[in-house]
Amino acid sequence: METIGICGAGLIGASWAIGFANAGFKCLVYDSNEESFDKFESVSNQLIQDLKILNPQLNIEKIKSNIVLKCSIEEICKNSILIQESIIEDLDIKKKVFKQLDKLSTKDTIIASSSSYLLISKISEDVEYRDRCINAHPALPPHVVPFVEVGGSPDTSKYIIEKALSIYKKANYAAIVINKETEGFILNRLQGALLNEAVRLHEGGFASMDDIDIALKHALGIRWAFMGPFEIMDLNAPEGIKDSFTRYKSGIQNLAKEQNSVPEYSDEYLNKLENEQRKRLPYSDRSGRIEKRNKMIALIRKLKLELGEDIQNG
Amino acid sequence: METIGICGAGLIGASWAIGFANAGFKCLVYDSNEESFDKFESVSNQLIQDLKILNPQLNIEKIKSNIVLKCSIEEICKNSILIQESIIEDLDIKKKVFKQLDKLSTKDTIIASSSSYLLISKISEDVEYRDRCINAHPALPPHVVPFVEVGGSPDTSKYIIEKALSIYKKANYAAIVINKETEGFILNRLQGALLNEAVRLHEGGFASMDDIDIALKHALGIRWAFMGPFEIMDLNAPEGIKDSFTRYKSGIQNLAKEQNSVPEYSDEYLNKLENEQRKRLPYSDRSGRIEKRNKMIALIRKLKLELGEDIQNG
Repeated sequence: METIGICGAGLIGASWAIGFANAGFKCLVYDSNEESFDKFESVSNQLIQDLKILNPQLNIEKIKSNIVLKCSIEEICKNSILIQESIIEDLDIKKKVFKQLDKLSTKDTIIASSSSYLLISKISEDVEYRDRCINAHPALPPHVVPFVEVGGSPDTSKYIIEKALSIYKKANYAAIVINKETEGFILNRLQGALLNEAVRLHEGGFASMDDIDIALKHALGIRWAFMGPFEIMDLNAPEGIKDSFTRYKSGIQNLAKEQNSVPEYSDEYLNKLENEQRKRLPYSDRSGRIEKRNKMIALIRKLKLELGEDIQNG
Repeated sequence: METIGICGAGLIGASWAIGFANAGFKCLVYDSNEESFDKFESVSNQLIQDLKILNPQLNIEKIKSNIVLKCSIEEICKNSILIQESIIEDLDIKKKVFKQLDKLSTKDTIIASSSSYLLISKISEDVEYRDRCINAHPALPPHVVPFVEVGGSPDTSKYIIEKALSIYKKANYAAIVINKETEGFILNRLQGALLNEAVRLHEGGFASMDDIDIALKHALGIRWAFMGPFEIMDLNAPEGIKDSFTRYKSGIQNLAKEQNSVPEYSDEYLNKLENEQRKRLPYSDRSGRIEKRNKMIALIRKLKLELGEDIQNG
């Protein structure tokens, strides 16, 4: 049985532990703050409930028996093929932890950061064996959206990237490669492009918050739930993707010329967003909505699985 | 029974006819080229099959009995509360047709163009009663994605916009308002922002076509299938949408600063896209993929409907 070290026992750490444990890996979980484990079981149980929607035959006992809590940092470093760091998003703290992990683990152990924006070239700056350090950024919520984008610094070895990809795929993650370091990686660059435009349209008075959300959820998003932008473009004109882009390119280019302002996200604007959003969804209904979101994601994935459109590894 | 005039009997016209007829409107269909009707029945039958996935009790006879084919332009103008123009995307031709529709219909008939990018201020330039002319742009594929974005020119009356919205909503479309004319409207501005960034990432060598598609379909898109960007941001930080944007705003702004180049979409690049895409999906498999796309959309909508997450009008 292969061993994964989990560094950080918060929500993201718990989610990684469940994902790996469910795929048959042994997970050793460490947190510098022992109190982090107080909520680990209740959080895990909640996450497992969402996974049961996707797979009613989920072997909960197997998952639990594969997770060992309250390990020391030495224990998670020993014999792990990969250590997944999911601690606070603070560069200095991550740098220190990476230095520790590097010293305590054998040279061929992969050390992966879950950071959503700190680049591994920075995080691994003070590390001796930088060739085995990577970014491995999950999507939210990671237990029902088992996606990970994997990228290295210029010092990371290609072999390590390939090895990490095969481990994540073995654990049933949709794993993609970031070929060159770039802020926001792939996921948040795509999301950010859309989000900035949504804000330009809303702040500029072109459409309401409700209507922009509708354009996503009742039109664009239904397709993006099972096809990416290139696949969709391929089906949008009779001759395929080149035909589509040839027809629409001047329009798309004109948009690019206009979509280049940087929204200010002023306090005044953010207060306006907060007020509008709270009118649609009172704060007290928010946790119910998060539960519904996780359930919806699990059900869409179940549908995709039944139709052969879910993650296909191997 | 209220009457809708359908001008143009192609795929989009057929889709509008089925949508309105299914909601109990009488649809009179005109096309300047009678040969366009040759395929109308086979196209309609295909579209209806997709709708049957969403609603197995679909009343096909009712739909068919509500659609009258091969009407004259005079007939579709007489007594229609709204005329939906879905002819070729050519400004001069649309301008001529709008002039005709304006002359033949009573002053309070709404004249709506399905154009995906020609602005109604241009299309209605030569029209006498410009106050009742609107853009009403559907999403693709319109029969299973019943979305429409409605906008006027500076000459369009507010009353007409409100009336058009109520008609589309009565016909079970998710109808949104474009408050000010803007190239790409709302849908394609959002889609274009994402598409240009996908191309920047691909052409720049940051990620493969496959991996960018995976980031959409196995991560971002699953959420966007039932929640818009503002709703999602609200759930991404403990205190809600303002908390989310406050945490992530500098990152999102940094992305906006970088995401401002205009992709060239050169022939060389488009050929590369075509070659890569054809390796993933041979041209002969494309029509099957389109059928699967429509089926998937219908099934996701069915799931949303069952969970109270589909279009909610009224």
